[in-house]
Formats: sequence, C-alpha cells, structure tokens
Amino acid sequence: MPRVSQDRLDERRRQILAGARACFARHGYEGATVRRLEEETGLSRGAIFHHFRDKDALFLAAAEADAVKMAAVVAEHGLVQVMRDLLLDSDPDWLGTQLEVSRRLRTDADFRRAWAARLAAISTASRLRLGRQREAGVLREDVDLPTLQRFLALALDGLVMHLAMGMPADDLDPVLDLVEEAVRR
Amino acid sequence: MPRVSQDRLDERRRQILAGARACFARHGYEGATVRRLEEETGLSRGAIFHHFRDKDALFLAAAEADAVKMAAVVAEHGLVQVMRDLLLDSDPDWLGTQLEVSRRLRTDADFRRAWAARLAAISTASRLRLGRQREAGVLREDVDLPTLQRFLALALDGLVMHLAMGMPADDLDPVLDLVEEAVRR
Repeated sequence: MPRVSQDRLDERRRQILAGARACFARHGYEGATVRRLEEETGLSRGAIFHHFRDKDALFLAAAEADAVKMAAVVAEHGLVQVMRDLLLDSDPDWLGTQLEVSRRLRTDADFRRAWAARLAAISTASRLRLGRQREAGVLREDVDLPTLQRFLALALDGLVMHLAMGMPADDLDPVLDLVEEAVRR
Repeated sequence: MPRVSQDRLDERRRQILAGARACFARHGYEGATVRRLEEETGLSRGAIFHHFRDKDALFLAAAEADAVKMAAVVAEHGLVQVMRDLLLDSDPDWLGTQLEVSRRLRTDADFRRAWAARLAAISTASRLRLGRQREAGVLREDVDLPTLQRFLALALDGLVMHLAMGMPADDLDPVLDLVEEAVRR
C-alpha cells in the first residue's frame, strides 16, 4: 500500500482548517458541531479527527495560522501594521468567535497555556522589532520598551473587540495614526 | 390592600439586579438559567420577571447600572479615570460575560439598539468633557475631538478585553499614562 505523501497530508490539513475556520466563524465555538464541521470541510469526522485530536485542537490550529501570519507582519512592519491590515480586511465573525472563546482563558488552564503559546510568537516578534526601532532612534526614549509593547497590544485588543462587535471601521485610520505616533519620538 | 411603596419596589429591583449580575458573572449569559437566577437573587421567577420582561432585559439593566456609574466618572474625571478605576477594581467574570454577550451585537438588531443606548450616555459624557478640556487648552490641537474620543474608546475596549481574559493588570498604569498623554498637549 503506497504511503500518502506529505504534500497530500498537508493539503488535507489545510482543507480541514479552512472549513473549520469558516464553521467556527459562522456558528461560534459551541455551535460548530461535529456534523457542521463535516459539512463545512466536506470530510468525515474520522478524517477530521485523524488530523486533529479534538475540537479544541482544531480551533487552536486555525487560530495558530493567523498568529503565524501576524507574527510575520509584526517582524517586518510592526504591530500597527497588523492593526491597519485588520481595518482593511477582517472577518468579524471569526473575530467574534475568538472573543467568545477568550472567555475560557480565565477558567481553563490547558486552553490558557495553548493560547499563550500562540501569542508568544507575536509578542516575541513585537519585542524584537521594538528593540531594533529603538536602536534606529525611531522610538521615544522616555518610556521603556515593555510599556510601549503593552500599549500597542492594548490597542490591538481594543481593535479586535471593536471589529468583533461589528462596529464601523472606516473612521479608525486617524486613530491608528495616533497610536503609532504615541510610541514614536 | 396597601400599595407597595416605591421605595420597596426600588429596593427589590436592586436586589434582583445584584443577584442577576453575580449569576451572569459566575455562569455566563447562557449558563444563567432561570433556576440559577432564582437561587442567586433569593426570589421566585414570578418576582424576578414581574420587574424585568425577560433575561435580556435583566442583563441589559445590570449593564446599564455600570454605564450610569461610568458616565458619571467620565463627566467628572474623563475616560482615562474609568480605565484607572477598572485597573484597581474590576470583576473579570462580569467583564467576561459582557464579552460573551457582545458577540450578539453583530447578529441581533434589538440587542444592538439596546446596547447602543447604554453606550450613548458614556460617549455623550466623554464628548462633553473633551470639549471642555479643549476649551481649557489641555488637549492637543492637531487632532480633532472625534478622533481623540475614538482613541480613548479603543483603549477602553482593549482594557476590558485584557481584564476579561484574566490577564495581569498590575503593569498597566504606565500604559494608561501613555494613553492619557497621547491626547494631551
């Protein structure tokens, strides 16, 4: 029996993640039943849970894909660019599901650990970039880097919440200018 | 038969709201069943829903009480003081339930209207205060007031999300200093 190639496996994994993400966005975490996950991915539960241990693992992997993309943008262009990208192109339903799920961070230690790992890539990228910017003399000198980083993270959280509630995004460009300017010299 | 005095009615209403708020905080919106609401308020469902049309009305009234308090703080000391108060004394469980519920803002028009009314008092108070501060020459002049107001609202949303996720609050004082300074001259 021929072994399934790695490419096939990766492709299958991507197919599951794309469907699962759409399903979580549409129905929320609780509403994304196994039956709906099957419909949205076009695969059987057996196939889905061959690749992912359980629904939590599936959700975290879908969120992980975002985190990888965000960390790359942060490394190259900074956290404010992540916010500008969100303004231009975000899926409020998917953000809303992340909001719904973030409630569990307080009460579920395993989920909290997995989520923290997801955020670590972003905050490391942000710290490194701020460090380079400070060396380049771009940032204000009178506030320490951890405070600047927390300030940017707070603005990002606020933006995610704003968009997840379906609030208008078209008047936020000058607000992000203000955020950016507040950390600069 | 003597009529129940207004004081008694108000007192009963307060009792229901305090219990309901604790119940929503502990169990989340969905988890706050009528039975649990009865337990937490110490009153029968008949008594509870004599005062409030349904669970939505009860939740919105509990959130309304916060909004009234927040609007008073905003009017007197500004939106940054609301954030400082949240840092000192907030209930992450209650904030988490608000997060959970805010997901409905995108999909439920009635709920959205009721929530917007709740926020109107705060944003009006914020607008008036910023107007007075501009006249007093406290604010920067190169950014318009709506943008300054949206910037502060974004920071507040970010803080609510941060606290609702149970993240540490003890390192955010200098971040709020930065927020405050960003709108000042």
